[in-house]
Amino acid sequence: MRILLVGAGGVGDAIAKIAARRSFYELIVVSDFDESRAERTIAAIAARHGEESAQRFRAEQIDASDPYAVESLVREHRITHVMNAVEPKFVPTIFAGALAAGANYLDMAMSLSEPHPTDPHRQTGVKLGDDQFAQAPDWQKLGQLALVGMGVEPGLSDVFARYASDHLFSEIDELGTRDGANLVVRDDEGNEMFAPSFSIWTTIEECLNPPVIWKKDEGWFTTPPFSEPEVFVFPEGIGPVECVNVEHEEVLLMPRWLDAKRVTFKYGLGAEFIGVLKTLHLLGLDSTVPLRVRGADAAGVKGPVEVAPRDVVAAALPDPASIGPRMSGKTCAGVWVTGTGLDGEPREVYLYHVSDNEWTMREYDAQCVVWQTAMNPVIALELLATGVWKGSGVLGPEAFDAAPFLELMARPLDEGGYDQPWGLDERTPTRAG
Amino acid sequence: MRILLVGAGGVGDAIAKIAARRSFYELIVVSDFDESRAERTIAAIAARHGEESAQRFRAEQIDASDPYAVESLVREHRITHVMNAVEPKFVPTIFAGALAAGANYLDMAMSLSEPHPTDPHRQTGVKLGDDQFAQAPDWQKLGQLALVGMGVEPGLSDVFARYASDHLFSEIDELGTRDGANLVVRDDEGNEMFAPSFSIWTTIEECLNPPVIWKKDEGWFTTPPFSEPEVFVFPEGIGPVECVNVEHEEVLLMPRWLDAKRVTFKYGLGAEFIGVLKTLHLLGLDSTVPLRVRGADAAGVKGPVEVAPRDVVAAALPDPASIGPRMSGKTCAGVWVTGTGLDGEPREVYLYHVSDNEWTMREYDAQCVVWQTAMNPVIALELLATGVWKGSGVLGPEAFDAAPFLELMARPLDEGGYDQPWGLDERTPTRAG
Repeated sequence: MRILLVGAGGVGDAIAKIAARRSFYELIVVSDFDESRAERTIAAIAARHGEESAQRFRAEQIDASDPYAVESLVREHRITHVMNAVEPKFVPTIFAGALAAGANYLDMAMSLSEPHPTDPHRQTGVKLGDDQFAQAPDWQKLGQLALVGMGVEPGLSDVFARYASDHLFSEIDELGTRDGANLVVRDDEGNEMFAPSFSIWTTIEECLNPPVIWKKDEGWFTTPPFSEPEVFVFPEGIGPVECVNVEHEEVLLMPRWLDAKRVTFKYGLGAEFIGVLKTLHLLGLDSTVPLRVRGADAAGVKGPVEVAPRDVVAAALPDPASIGPRMSGKTCAGVWVTGTGLDGEPREVYLYHVSDNEWTMREYDAQCVVWQTAMNPVIALELLATGVWKGSGVLGPEAFDAAPFLELMARPLDEGGYDQPWGLDERTPTRAG
Repeated sequence: MRILLVGAGGVGDAIAKIAARRSFYELIVVSDFDESRAERTIAAIAARHGEESAQRFRAEQIDASDPYAVESLVREHRITHVMNAVEPKFVPTIFAGALAAGANYLDMAMSLSEPHPTDPHRQTGVKLGDDQFAQAPDWQKLGQLALVGMGVEPGLSDVFARYASDHLFSEIDELGTRDGANLVVRDDEGNEMFAPSFSIWTTIEECLNPPVIWKKDEGWFTTPPFSEPEVFVFPEGIGPVECVNVEHEEVLLMPRWLDAKRVTFKYGLGAEFIGVLKTLHLLGLDSTVPLRVRGADAAGVKGPVEVAPRDVVAAALPDPASIGPRMSGKTCAGVWVTGTGLDGEPREVYLYHVSDNEWTMREYDAQCVVWQTAMNPVIALELLATGVWKGSGVLGPEAFDAAPFLELMARPLDEGGYDQPWGLDERTPTRAG
């Protein structure tokens, strides 16, 4: 296996660092628009694992918005798998470049949605991944695989859903992805800072788009943002967090392969963060449409410049990849499943994985949210490299057998695994009488 | 009297339109960095009052950050009074230009403050107007007048405070400026919009700076932003509004001329607006320090540009001068005075002026908040032109007799007044027994 990793930001950097401990591939080309970021990642691997380990890595410059740039790097390095680790707005070009060059493809977020033009809070418009699924026949015809949505959420959540479907339930009422954390970031004086642990650009995109829900008898439909708030209790000391509906790939992926009456995604944003997102929207600061603004530099006022308000919000906040050392706490990703167990009785479980920032910083020098995202595509690549997972066309993680994934993930390091146990929280309400 | 009006934004435009109905001056030079805004104001006057009325107006380009540009326009047009109607950051240069050119000067906001370097939420640093008062001896020596803080708040509020001091109280406990409104702005579909009725740039400046309070036995001191919330009931149907301490000129002006035990300013921001300001601060979007941001134009991504986040916030919101047609409701400015009445008994009054958007739009094509601000310096200029008000040095509105101001303001239009009655709300609590 020869991998082209596109993007050496927070998640791309962590993918390379996790892969550095594995032996299933021959080469990873780490590419970025800013080649120095790719070099920094490889230098960190050399520093931790020695120069020899770093021999399997190569830095390249890439313009992810240009499919020909992707195609040309694939051909130059005889790449077998393109691993997309940049913002989802670059999905179409990387996807096209990989297809044209004859490589397989993986991503962690799918092609972007567009709201319904007249009824955005009830009907879907262009859905997440629609552009990719439309090209599924081409991938299938050529025998190439596009494994889409293979991060943590989507990704591990879809693996959990498949596992529940195969091994825990005879009939599923709801597959409800639930994500929550108790992370805190502190400044030099020890005061809590506002510092989102994931790209604010992407968070705004997913939280302010109309959330999508799937029901077996209605198909996909949307609601207004932040709908159906619920307090979900997360395990391992994280505790109760306010969760709301958010547009997310799981809702588009799971119903294509799994049988359930309802599929939802709720994000544990918490009241403060929901308030921040609502305010950004109220003021138009979520917009990606460039505004004409008075330019300024340290020396004084200059002529007008054009900037998108959302880019300014992102620039004003700390870089999520840089906050690991200031952060403490855990993040939890999982799927809450309700329905009928194998014994014919009502059952309710929460399947989850918790990532602890103290551990990910110590072991990988990566903060826990990006690390948790990065672990899953590496495991998937390993299962593809070893032939445990096989397929062609455009497939979600739930199209593959979940058991070997979860087994490899949980297996201790010294037995060749990833040492990442997962949890099964039995939540079936006990009945009186 | 020959007036140089610096700034043809919302308030400057309204000043010219109000003055257009008066005869106390010979010439008003309307100047702006963007000369077309000055021309637009004069064209609006010509359209409403005829070409002849517009003969007393002249448009000029000006760079308000350059004292020599101010000085040169003063000399060229033999200006007697410079009327500053731009953002307070340009106070120092316009102030200096007027002094150097031998003209008198008026403004509606004073030179900016700087927080105390180590104890900002308890001690004052550089206070509002400090830079101007430091130059008072020069103005006095040359016999020139700088009438500072002569808008509505500061301005009319200071006139009310002087009136209460002269005519209503034998001893004053508190002079508490209280500002509130019930304004609503609606979009094309009739939904309420977030659209502040005054410059967001200035509102952020005054609301996020530590509020200043004056006590007779302690002098000036500060508190954290948004301190001492209270619900104040405003008259004429506006009703109860949540008010908080805000840094404002009245607190710096009134104690210099009037005797009171305590001087405060509270702004009826309302819970939503306080939330917005807190969020902007949390995210660093209130900052005026330029950030490096990815530039963007309609055609795609460009190289990085430098912008101040606060300028982006201002650019993302509707121009306050443009929202008049979408707005409805009233705004109230006034001073709540407590103490001992002339009869030796406890007394409590609220002296106020209400501006109704429907009326200001119909009569002046100006929204009510900017119109209310603009009326007061025009009245002050008229009192100076007719010799009713006289003085030299750097003086606040409370240094002048309030009675003729309030009389001219309230007098009906057909009797030569401004037709703007004011209210005296007797609020003395009745005592049991």
